[in-house]
Amino acid sequence: MSQLSCGTSRIVGCRFSIYPMSDRFVELILGALRDTDMSKVWCHTDDVSTWVRGRSEHVFDVVQSIYLHSAASGEHVVLNATFSVGCPGDTQGDAFMSTDEIRMNAERYQAIPLKIAAHFALYPLGTADYMDTIYEIIGLAKEEGTFDESAHYASRLEGDAQRVFATLENAFNRARKSDKSHVVMTTTMSANSPSTR
Amino acid sequence: MSQLSCGTSRIVGCRFSIYPMSDRFVELILGALRDTDMSKVWCHTDDVSTWVRGRSEHVFDVVQSIYLHSAASGEHVVLNATFSVGCPGDTQGDAFMSTDEIRMNAERYQAIPLKIAAHFALYPLGTADYMDTIYEIIGLAKEEGTFDESAHYASRLEGDAQRVFATLENAFNRARKSDKSHVVMTTTMSANSPSTR
Repeated sequence: MSQLSCGTSRIVGCRFSIYPMSDRFVELILGALRDTDMSKVWCHTDDVSTWVRGRSEHVFDVVQSIYLHSAASGEHVVLNATFSVGCPGDTQGDAFMSTDEIRMNAERYQAIPLKIAAHFALYPLGTADYMDTIYEIIGLAKEEGTFDESAHYASRLEGDAQRVFATLENAFNRARKSDKSHVVMTTTMSANSPSTR
Repeated sequence: MSQLSCGTSRIVGCRFSIYPMSDRFVELILGALRDTDMSKVWCHTDDVSTWVRGRSEHVFDVVQSIYLHSAASGEHVVLNATFSVGCPGDTQGDAFMSTDEIRMNAERYQAIPLKIAAHFALYPLGTADYMDTIYEIIGLAKEEGTFDESAHYASRLEGDAQRVFATLENAFNRARKSDKSHVVMTTTMSANSPSTR
């Protein structure tokens, strides 16, 4: 079995977008991209989203870096992301899997203090016991202290951005229980919102 | 069996957000809400998303209305939406099901001309043959002429906003094949983007 289909070294991907609610949105997005080292992921962009693919830790590293650097502007910035592993229609191409595990961006974004609110949803596909997996992962988020409440079609996380991203990464990695699991996780994350809850 | 759990009259819900990439984002969102009749759906908002729940046609009607009215401003506006039906953790509350089928907003938003690009993904849950359903629905989108291409983790639609919304509503309704189906559909939709593709 090649490393591309084995355990946690399977290709992980994320389709995501950053939405700065500001006239300066182009500048903020381009700035966050410049501040992020993307050398360990495959990357593609169209006019709706950006895709990154590679080892799980680098996919999460790059998405977290782009979001934190854009939200560090102080503007109201939202991240929308869909993480996926094990899609049967997927190919082994478009991925950089033979990298080491050192995260290229962690040191810089860990220096950015930011409070965020996030909704996330897990979709374990092709299995009848998917709700058991979902409830188990929500239990883990509660143990991590970032879980805020359940909402229709999502769970709400709140707190320091580093901790919320850690919960999301843990949730995704724990939900894929076998080498054949197809798991999708969506998240919507908001920082610097003028809305009171 | 109550009308709440029967066939197409089951409760449908949507968690969605509108992102105007503009300093006027608050004004644009509030204006779109004022222009939309929400009397036939249950509605709740927190600082990340808005939820609407009710009969399928009214959920789609309200989301389409809010998006088209905000994008009619000419600003770059994105919709992110998660539609859901049949979630086992769902309750029968929080829904207005005993309404008629007349869409309250269609006449006004159908007068708004708008070209959009959208990504959408379908997640039929709890079933081993979910990929068959996904491929079948993509085939229907191709017949409707709005399908543009497959992308990692999503399909791309493009064209007139009314037609793209019709494809999404058809896809969602056709994917729930039985009274017990749990189906989730996500979409990210973009209008007036300065990006070339």
